[in-house]
Amino acid sequence: MNRRMVLYMVGTVVKIEAALMVLPLIASFIYKEACSTAFLISIAAALAVGFALTLIFKPGSKVIYAKEGFVIVSLAWLALSAVGALPFYISGEIPSYVDAFFETVSGFTTTGASILTDVEAMSRGLLFWRSFTHWVGGMGVLVFVMAVIPGVSDRSIHILRAEAPGPIVGKLVPKMRQTARILYIIYMVMTVVEIAFLLAGGMPVFDSLIHAFGTAGTGGFGVKGDSIASYSPYLQWVITVFMLLFGINFNLYYLVLIKKFRTAIKSEELWAYLIIFFASTAVITLNIMPMGGSFSENLRLAAFQVSSIVTTTGYATADFNQWPTLSKTVILLLMFIGSCAGSTAGGFKVSRVVLLMKKIKRELQKLLHPRAVSVIRFEGKRVDEATMSSLGSYLAIYVLFYCIFVFLLGFETLDLETNISAVAACYNNIGPALGAAGPASNYAFYSPFSKIVLSMAMLLGRLEILPLILTFSPSTWTKK
Amino acid sequence: MNRRMVLYMVGTVVKIEAALMVLPLIASFIYKEACSTAFLISIAAALAVGFALTLIFKPGSKVIYAKEGFVIVSLAWLALSAVGALPFYISGEIPSYVDAFFETVSGFTTTGASILTDVEAMSRGLLFWRSFTHWVGGMGVLVFVMAVIPGVSDRSIHILRAEAPGPIVGKLVPKMRQTARILYIIYMVMTVVEIAFLLAGGMPVFDSLIHAFGTAGTGGFGVKGDSIASYSPYLQWVITVFMLLFGINFNLYYLVLIKKFRTAIKSEELWAYLIIFFASTAVITLNIMPMGGSFSENLRLAAFQVSSIVTTTGYATADFNQWPTLSKTVILLLMFIGSCAGSTAGGFKVSRVVLLMKKIKRELQKLLHPRAVSVIRFEGKRVDEATMSSLGSYLAIYVLFYCIFVFLLGFETLDLETNISAVAACYNNIGPALGAAGPASNYAFYSPFSKIVLSMAMLLGRLEILPLILTFSPSTWTKK
Repeated sequence: MNRRMVLYMVGTVVKIEAALMVLPLIASFIYKEACSTAFLISIAAALAVGFALTLIFKPGSKVIYAKEGFVIVSLAWLALSAVGALPFYISGEIPSYVDAFFETVSGFTTTGASILTDVEAMSRGLLFWRSFTHWVGGMGVLVFVMAVIPGVSDRSIHILRAEAPGPIVGKLVPKMRQTARILYIIYMVMTVVEIAFLLAGGMPVFDSLIHAFGTAGTGGFGVKGDSIASYSPYLQWVITVFMLLFGINFNLYYLVLIKKFRTAIKSEELWAYLIIFFASTAVITLNIMPMGGSFSENLRLAAFQVSSIVTTTGYATADFNQWPTLSKTVILLLMFIGSCAGSTAGGFKVSRVVLLMKKIKRELQKLLHPRAVSVIRFEGKRVDEATMSSLGSYLAIYVLFYCIFVFLLGFETLDLETNISAVAACYNNIGPALGAAGPASNYAFYSPFSKIVLSMAMLLGRLEILPLILTFSPSTWTKK
Repeated sequence: MNRRMVLYMVGTVVKIEAALMVLPLIASFIYKEACSTAFLISIAAALAVGFALTLIFKPGSKVIYAKEGFVIVSLAWLALSAVGALPFYISGEIPSYVDAFFETVSGFTTTGASILTDVEAMSRGLLFWRSFTHWVGGMGVLVFVMAVIPGVSDRSIHILRAEAPGPIVGKLVPKMRQTARILYIIYMVMTVVEIAFLLAGGMPVFDSLIHAFGTAGTGGFGVKGDSIASYSPYLQWVITVFMLLFGINFNLYYLVLIKKFRTAIKSEELWAYLIIFFASTAVITLNIMPMGGSFSENLRLAAFQVSSIVTTTGYATADFNQWPTLSKTVILLLMFIGSCAGSTAGGFKVSRVVLLMKKIKRELQKLLHPRAVSVIRFEGKRVDEATMSSLGSYLAIYVLFYCIFVFLLGFETLDLETNISAVAACYNNIGPALGAAGPASNYAFYSPFSKIVLSMAMLLGRLEILPLILTFSPSTWTKK
């Protein structure tokens, strides 16, 4: 284990976080808010920690193996959350540090679960920071580091693999740094386009920025107590469409950029994703019709909520807790699927679902024709057996941790619907759950213990479990 | 596909069912009940169908490949349930055929979920038949056929594989028929020993038979509205212990018989199973203490309920619906684990859980040391990669069907806790669920559509999904 390199990279990330906090600091100056002091202190603290780490642990060897990749990503995300919680805590706007930590983890992991009982009472500087963490966490902090910091070794593909979601992660172009830059440029351009669409619909500038951050990172933090419900139908549709767009694998946008339209449009994952979206929207639209409202209204409500849940964003225009059982069931099932690999969204990922379906199909064929050899192809390429095998392990470890989290929440005297869906909503980085933690409510009522459990669920979900497990298993740290 | 052989075997099974119905017929004569007519008609119908099938489809070739094995088992179980429902329906004691079918499927699959609102009003002949189906279904109908019918080809290992639960199914002795006989002899002896223990505790003869059938098959049908709650603590402990015993892999009893104690006691699955039992019992005992009652009372309640759920039996001495959230959470999680492979119990099976844990561990090691080659060993033997790979597929297809069933129950206007746990309880062949379908209630309130869905869940769970899927997939029936 190259410990110096690990701590050096963590220090670099914390320094970058200090730089990122300048934006909300500016916002707090513009709005002349008291929280600017909290940002100044936090930035100073982040710089102190960051420089201490990078100066003390200047690495001799720049080698990063898979092991280092996992540990760097895990520790960097923990450090980011711990430091990012400072402005909320120091300003006193979130008096408990556990609550501030929960809110920040929820931000960076693009979950959007909140402990705030009155979001509209927050200062604008902190609201900006809260939503900006979504934007940073969405594409990945270390991907950002690789894009902007010169001289990071090209072995850092291991960092990308550990941070980027999905079963198969590769580079777009041979150079790692170039890949990271392309991803961030696409991400930025799409965010700016969304801001333009929101402004065109008459949304105030501040709100447009916040909601663009929340949509782009598929996070879900907003500025209003009723989320998106009080905005115009046009704005709701804009957000519906952009949530869906940010749930698509960014590789496809790159393919479009280099004019490989036919390859992009043939993506199996894309089609599966769209089918899930349209089918779920159709079922829910029909199911909620008897509750009243016109067809177009119900279609808008269904499309928004499905898009929000399947992309793991978590914005709401309706309290799906009040919907009929069938719709609630669909929402709960969608919580686990998530969006495309290589997008900013969380969840189990559509590509894993597609690959598992292919695995099941092959298994059945093997039972009928035991001697037949069959190869699994995905997105036009052959999937090697190691990937197929680790898919089964991923499902197993995913289910295992889901059960552990549900068990740990059992210490709360809440109904099972709330606990089961709260874990689903945090673990899959969605935000609102069902029952007491539904879209019209928040997570404030959970005990500090449960808030820490749910924070871990968010981190595990965002980093796809393995990096964190490896970081905290002793054999990673012992020498061979 | 050897269609003649398939239908011939289904006919044989139905003829055997006719023979099995003679026992409840005798019971109905002893108690001078009107349902004896229903049994006579049902036996005649079963014989007619059975002989028609075996006479018309006398097979030319006795070859049974894997394909035939799956189809024979699936169709035989469907036929058994359809015919076995006749006495309930013809007697008029269950006026709806869908209800009678549900009850019979629940019996043969050893689920124990009931649509009866007043079990104590049923005639004794039908109660006997209802519980006897547990005993027959527990060890497997086709295993029985193989044990008693001469001349069944030794290729019928494929039938055993399709019917017996667990990831790895093998013969105890080289001869298939001998293996089937050994299993049934152990099963019968253990049942008789339990009856003796129950009689010794002062349980009436009829009740002893019924509860021994229900325990041995890990089914859960009883004779009283409050299940086992009104019997003495001694009787409750006897049933607790026997449920646990019938949840153990029968191979271990065979090892004990041939004096290989050390191999038996070293079984990894056995230890995992016992750890799950003791840990869950401890957690629940402590968790329900504040509800009142002495420690020994609460220990008895916890041990009984844990044993009942983990062995997928479903008897109850307490309404765990009234327990605190933590205990309910443990119960819900236990519902999915189930007992040992090669036992009469349902669920996902402890051996699969153990193997998946090993798979996860290997996956993590592979991430740290990509070039290391590691072999997975279970019960002292090397597990081949095909088995490890199909384990992942099984988990995937298990989860997939769980989600499908929960979705289909969504059409009911019930709370999610009820639907989620009702599917868990039927799919894993347990019986009582949480919420409206809890131990103090029944499944009568579900619509006929949902009852059919739940019946399919029970069959899929008992036969471990694959046989039924293959039977209803067109490619099984087309020629290569």
